[in-house]
Amino acid sequence: MSREAAFSEADHRHMARALMLARQGLYTTDPNPRVGCVIVQHPPGQPERVVGEGYHLRAGEPHAEIHALSAAGEHAKGATAYVTLEPCSHTGRTGPCAVALLDAQVARVVVAMVDPNPRVSGRGIEILRAAGIDVSVGLLEQDARALNPGFIARMQHKRPFVRLKMAMSLDGRTAMGSGESQWITGPEARRHVQRLRARSSAILSGVESIIMDDSRLTLRAEQLQLDNADSVVLRQPLRVILDTRLRLPLAAACLREPGRTLVMTTPDHSPEKRAKLTAAGADIQVFEPGPDGRLPLEELLGWLAEHEQVNELLVETGATLAGALLDARLVDELQLFVAPTLLGGEARPLFALPGLSRMADQRRLAIHDMRAVGRDWRIIATLQPD
Amino acid sequence: MSREAAFSEADHRHMARALMLARQGLYTTDPNPRVGCVIVQHPPGQPERVVGEGYHLRAGEPHAEIHALSAAGEHAKGATAYVTLEPCSHTGRTGPCAVALLDAQVARVVVAMVDPNPRVSGRGIEILRAAGIDVSVGLLEQDARALNPGFIARMQHKRPFVRLKMAMSLDGRTAMGSGESQWITGPEARRHVQRLRARSSAILSGVESIIMDDSRLTLRAEQLQLDNADSVVLRQPLRVILDTRLRLPLAAACLREPGRTLVMTTPDHSPEKRAKLTAAGADIQVFEPGPDGRLPLEELLGWLAEHEQVNELLVETGATLAGALLDARLVDELQLFVAPTLLGGEARPLFALPGLSRMADQRRLAIHDMRAVGRDWRIIATLQPD
Ligand SMILES: NC(=O)c1ccc[n+]([C@@H]2O[C@H](COP(=O)([O-])OP(=O)(O)OC[C@H]3O[C@@H](n4cnc5c(N)ncnc54)[C@H](OP(=O)(O)O)[C@@H]3O)[C@@H](O)[C@H]2O)c1
Ligand SMILES: NC(=O)c1ccc[n+]([C@@H]2O[C@H](COP(=O)([O-])OP(=O)(O)OC[C@H]3O[C@@H](n4cnc5c(N)ncnc54)[C@H](OP(=O)(O)O)[C@@H]3O)[C@@H](O)[C@H]2O)c1
Repeated sequence: MSREAAFSEADHRHMARALMLARQGLYTTDPNPRVGCVIVQHPPGQPERVVGEGYHLRAGEPHAEIHALSAAGEHAKGATAYVTLEPCSHTGRTGPCAVALLDAQVARVVVAMVDPNPRVSGRGIEILRAAGIDVSVGLLEQDARALNPGFIARMQHKRPFVRLKMAMSLDGRTAMGSGESQWITGPEARRHVQRLRARSSAILSGVESIIMDDSRLTLRAEQLQLDNADSVVLRQPLRVILDTRLRLPLAAACLREPGRTLVMTTPDHSPEKRAKLTAAGADIQVFEPGPDGRLPLEELLGWLAEHEQVNELLVETGATLAGALLDARLVDELQLFVAPTLLGGEARPLFALPGLSRMADQRRLAIHDMRAVGRDWRIIATLQPD
Repeated sequence: MSREAAFSEADHRHMARALMLARQGLYTTDPNPRVGCVIVQHPPGQPERVVGEGYHLRAGEPHAEIHALSAAGEHAKGATAYVTLEPCSHTGRTGPCAVALLDAQVARVVVAMVDPNPRVSGRGIEILRAAGIDVSVGLLEQDARALNPGFIARMQHKRPFVRLKMAMSLDGRTAMGSGESQWITGPEARRHVQRLRARSSAILSGVESIIMDDSRLTLRAEQLQLDNADSVVLRQPLRVILDTRLRLPLAAACLREPGRTLVMTTPDHSPEKRAKLTAAGADIQVFEPGPDGRLPLEELLGWLAEHEQVNELLVETGATLAGALLDARLVDELQLFVAPTLLGGEARPLFALPGLSRMADQRRLAIHDMRAVGRDWRIIATLQPD
């Protein structure tokens, strides 16, 4: 689909701007994708002129193209529209964006990436092309994809993009032997984690971590340090707790926080506790256990994508569940926050990985980024394919 | 002692050059310090001129000043000598360097650091000053000290500078549960370790590591990748094995390598094994065990400094001995080579540190350097004071 060679320097500039606009919605568009749009007039013999800009802010509100078109008004006619995602072909609240662009009589549309939803992919482009509009696709496509890893994973693979965050000591420990772990990393790293939460549809944790830390798993405006923090925290990511045997304490702090807490469990565990947890505010979702007697991880990720529209899922948990997810190759990205400290050989590991006993079985990582975050270090990595 | 303000730009330049020359001896001067010397003429109204340069290459050969003076010949008269270490006052093979400078009638001597040996410190400077020579001390002193951390530690504290090197996975593991550990890091990191060995007087290891890996603990010319590799490997660092109960296998590879192997043990362990190990080429040194029944670490470091003139000691061992040294606060520098791989929660720890059970007891590190080394990362750190 890529036709990079056909794009001019001005095309690159405007699409880069559209990507920047799209990023404005990073913390708010969920479960919709982040999308930006720039409309540019190129009057012959005169300098080009940006006539409209827009981005999608929030689900239920207009798409990026609609904002940009309404800013452009009459000036959209004959212009080029740069969109970071293929304009939609379905009738939403504001009608299909492809039709809106067509009605506004734009002459050309440049699209960074096609719609990742295989059921509609290419349809918006078809509508435009059928009306004689010049459509080019694939400009800065990698950056457009990077903006919406969760939306793409959900549309294409029917599962969320799974980002596993761990706070660890330099000797690879995530808690003391006793379970004590607060705080391994400093305030700067914890602020980064707040921002990771803010871009995620949901946060996943094993029940042991909740029992041990009584973590709230919420966004806190004062810790986010964003200009729009107050509006960002209006949407609290869904809290998902894996709790095979319904051990979650009724007094758990996360049950009293704004936003929903979803407890995933297996059948037949104390109907009484179940009723009490529901009364305490939890939603309960039951799965048949996997062969190991635990919750079936792949299946429940699929369920979260399908039933809760989870795009990006942030996993914040201990070595057991983190290891199980890695072992099942369900982790798309690792973010390790490494503190310059030693917790010793009796502290808890980073990942359990119980099957790993020979050097030949080691799990190799690709390191994508390593940088200082306050007094700590942040490493972004992915598991290498076997 | 520092009089930085009094040093000119030219002084800095020449001392920096002297430090560079001193570094030429990094792998060969042991047990002597690395020292460089530059002699410069400043004829009035004419450009300055370097008339002699020298560095100490090998114990038993001339000191840096003697090389530089013999290169300068008559031109030393009225010149300034830059020396990275206070000129010696004792009568060595070539006579005291302070007297040689005086005989050559230099007008000024600039010294980066005083002799760290408290018994002679300041004497060389006294000899020069008593003869009316202008002596300034303390130029680029920190870099001069960094060149000889082991020599300084031995002179001032009667113990070696202890550098602990560990190869680890990103999840803080140094071997599989079975003990298998070759190779965690890549060839580039292993070349770095060869160079660390080359600058060290001795390499220390626990007997478990030798039993498990049958490591040779030698310098290999082909791995050093140095222009002077063939001459560097003529001096093999002393191999020191801590072996409380004389478990070292007679067939251990290190016993058949060039250079000496010193086995440290406690009394009364199988005189027969002792005789066999001696016959196999080991030197045996006996210490009374410490209160934990193991070799007394602090005492044996002192012994190595006193009896084997060990300046820099490279520790290459497993989590047990490494942890014991850290716990006893006997480690001056940590070099961690971190491979982008996971070995899992059943693999062996980085440091045992058995007493560490609460977050409040964590051992904080100061990170001094972090950089890519081939596909791995190298972290240089020190333990923060309690
Ligand atoms: N450093 C960090 O980033 C960080 C973050 C969070 C927590 N922690 C620390 O981690 C410790 C807790 O970690 P943990 O390893 O004991 O537990 P965990 O990973 O937090 O939770 C594991 C639990 O999840 C449940 N689970 C359900 N289905 C599962 C499946 N398919 N696979 C794996 N687990 C499944 C299991 O309990 P059931 O069988 O009862 O369902 C299991 O015991 C605490 O000390 C906490 O302080 C550290
Ligand atoms: N990744 C790396 O950088 C690296 C490097 C080397 C080895 N390794 C791996 O490490 C593993 C071996 O490590 P390890 O922890 O079992 O043993 P280790 O640290 O190599 O050796 C420990 C042994 O040293 C002796 N020792 C004597 N006095 C001591 C004292 N005061 N304190 C502590 N130890 C003293 C003890 O044996 P006695 O009581 O018999 O004297 C003790 O068991 C192997 O699997 C090896 O492959 C990894």
